[in-house]
Amino acid sequence: MDRREFLSASAAAATGGLSLDGLSRPALANGAKTLTMVTTWPKDYVGLGESASRLAARVRTMSGGRLSITVYAAGELVPAFEAFEAVANGTADLYHGAETYWESRSSAFNFFCAVPFGLTAIETSAWIHHGGAQALWDALSAPYGIKPMLASATGVQMGGWFNKEIKRVEDFKGLRMRIPGLGARILKEVGAVPVALPGSQIHDALRDGAIDAAEWIGPWSDLALDLQKVARYYYYPGFHEPGTSLAVGINLGVWRGLSDQERAIIEAACGAEHAFSLAEYNARNGDALHTLVTNHGVQLRAFPTQVLLELGKTAGRVVRAAAADSPETRRIYDHYTAFRRKALTWAQLSDQAFWNARSLPFEY
Amino acid sequence: MDRREFLSASAAAATGGLSLDGLSRPALANGAKTLTMVTTWPKDYVGLGESASRLAARVRTMSGGRLSITVYAAGELVPAFEAFEAVANGTADLYHGAETYWESRSSAFNFFCAVPFGLTAIETSAWIHHGGAQALWDALSAPYGIKPMLASATGVQMGGWFNKEIKRVEDFKGLRMRIPGLGARILKEVGAVPVALPGSQIHDALRDGAIDAAEWIGPWSDLALDLQKVARYYYYPGFHEPGTSLAVGINLGVWRGLSDQERAIIEAACGAEHAFSLAEYNARNGDALHTLVTNHGVQLRAFPTQVLLELGKTAGRVVRAAAADSPETRRIYDHYTAFRRKALTWAQLSDQAFWNARSLPFEY
Repeated sequence: MDRREFLSASAAAATGGLSLDGLSRPALANGAKTLTMVTTWPKDYVGLGESASRLAARVRTMSGGRLSITVYAAGELVPAFEAFEAVANGTADLYHGAETYWESRSSAFNFFCAVPFGLTAIETSAWIHHGGAQALWDALSAPYGIKPMLASATGVQMGGWFNKEIKRVEDFKGLRMRIPGLGARILKEVGAVPVALPGSQIHDALRDGAIDAAEWIGPWSDLALDLQKVARYYYYPGFHEPGTSLAVGINLGVWRGLSDQERAIIEAACGAEHAFSLAEYNARNGDALHTLVTNHGVQLRAFPTQVLLELGKTAGRVVRAAAADSPETRRIYDHYTAFRRKALTWAQLSDQAFWNARSLPFEY
Repeated sequence: MDRREFLSASAAAATGGLSLDGLSRPALANGAKTLTMVTTWPKDYVGLGESASRLAARVRTMSGGRLSITVYAAGELVPAFEAFEAVANGTADLYHGAETYWESRSSAFNFFCAVPFGLTAIETSAWIHHGGAQALWDALSAPYGIKPMLASATGVQMGGWFNKEIKRVEDFKGLRMRIPGLGARILKEVGAVPVALPGSQIHDALRDGAIDAAEWIGPWSDLALDLQKVARYYYYPGFHEPGTSLAVGINLGVWRGLSDQERAIIEAACGAEHAFSLAEYNARNGDALHTLVTNHGVQLRAFPTQVLLELGKTAGRVVRAAAADSPETRRIYDHYTAFRRKALTWAQLSDQAFWNARSLPFEY
């Protein structure tokens, strides 16, 4: 069914009994609702595309088939970066994507996706669900007619693929590197030339020398793109994306038109899928890293401490500068950094201290 | 309604149409089912008790009220440690508790709750959901007529409260310390005297000198018990419980008698609540740590590296020794440690490397 057929079928199925502020009308047939989800991911995209599909399947099963979500890949209904506008204007009912893609509307959206040297996935979830940030996020998205919620997470990403070693921060000078978002602003500050490229083009661009380096996601996703065939060194950690979170945004009129039961089903599906996808990246990255090193001879490199320190200083300046974009971004930045200070202290005593202890040389 | 009234009402409400292998009969009235959940937590217990109640509320809302779960605190229907048996024999339909409490049946249960120097919460979730361990867990619990699933997590715990400093591993000698599970076996190996005490008795035992030291959970839970009033030093990290996971176990007959829709609702509720509770501990621990240090002058201490190394060596021996308990435990131990090796490598490149980088001295 193409887009025109779909719209026609939806219109035919819609009954007159449902009024949703005139913003959007979920397709209705035999009392069952079908919602349209646009995503920012390619068709059947490993990890995040699959997570969106699982989310839809969970909702369908939990509602006994009375609430269905039809998932469209990027470009099927609208291009990836137009997913937000499509939900805002009611062309679609939901999107599944990265909030950082809407940063041209407000740089505050970055705080709900990825912040260099910022919060990890669980810390981001803690900030949003238990630190008061859901209300800030709701207020940020409401003027666009959208209700946002956490839906997936990749965990800490890798620092990227390079064909020369990074020994000093000066080694970034002139480097043409594929990197998006706030990370791109940091690399620009240290003299690199950030390049915007969709994932599907990274392999060929590296192979052909159009770019010198590239970050994508992590071992699982990077292995799927065969990046190990076109670059020699695989750097860590991904200082620029420590806890990338993905979101579902629902048209507010549609959201308000749902029953308590339907809202609870969507919220639990997003919550469960957030945990499930984060665990999935964790497991698959462990496997893929093993494959990359053992079967493909990939050379792992840690960014030197002095390089990370310089990047950290630059990140501090870049994130503070982003906060000056608007009073709204300032408010969210202040809230985020206050939470980050406490999270950082707690991490130093808990996960960080434990992981360092677990790495001591003992037999297990 | 007390237990007798409840059973009587259940029996009256049960229709003859439902046959569940004769194991258990959920209460039925007007087509709505009510399941009975026993927990291993005190009434309204902060964190885990609240998590069990939220789980029940999620299920009720998602099912439109057609599936309810009545939650009983430890001791209301059965004592905490009898929750497993109650579900096995059909006295209750589900339990919410710590798998380590059933270690007298098989030490393999420990691997699904807390393992010293083992996996963190997300790594445990990765192992269970994406590493193949759910099948091992199902096989472990099936002979008891129970279907297990992850339902909550506390994150990395603290190392405990002490009134003298721990500078060398010899400082544990003769120390009477409240600590359960595999952690207790480790402390015994280094000369301490592990004491088993429920949380409610820790404060008074420390105050009265019946014990010298105690570990409980972390800042949020420990502050609620006022442990800062009866001990001076608060040690980290909690090497013995790096990713404590809590489980729901459902009577297998009841589980098989549920519809696909009901099973999906329970699974998503557990999945969402696992993520939600882990994020909650993360947020509340950050706040409570701040309160403990700022308002109560608690003195934080890191276990010295040499002490952690000795404890790590001892943990390796203790966990390997536990594996020898039965072929079943050996199989699960082998699977766990193989996953741990890959998880450890991935953590070193991702969260661990990132967190260490985030702690470098730069302004943010």
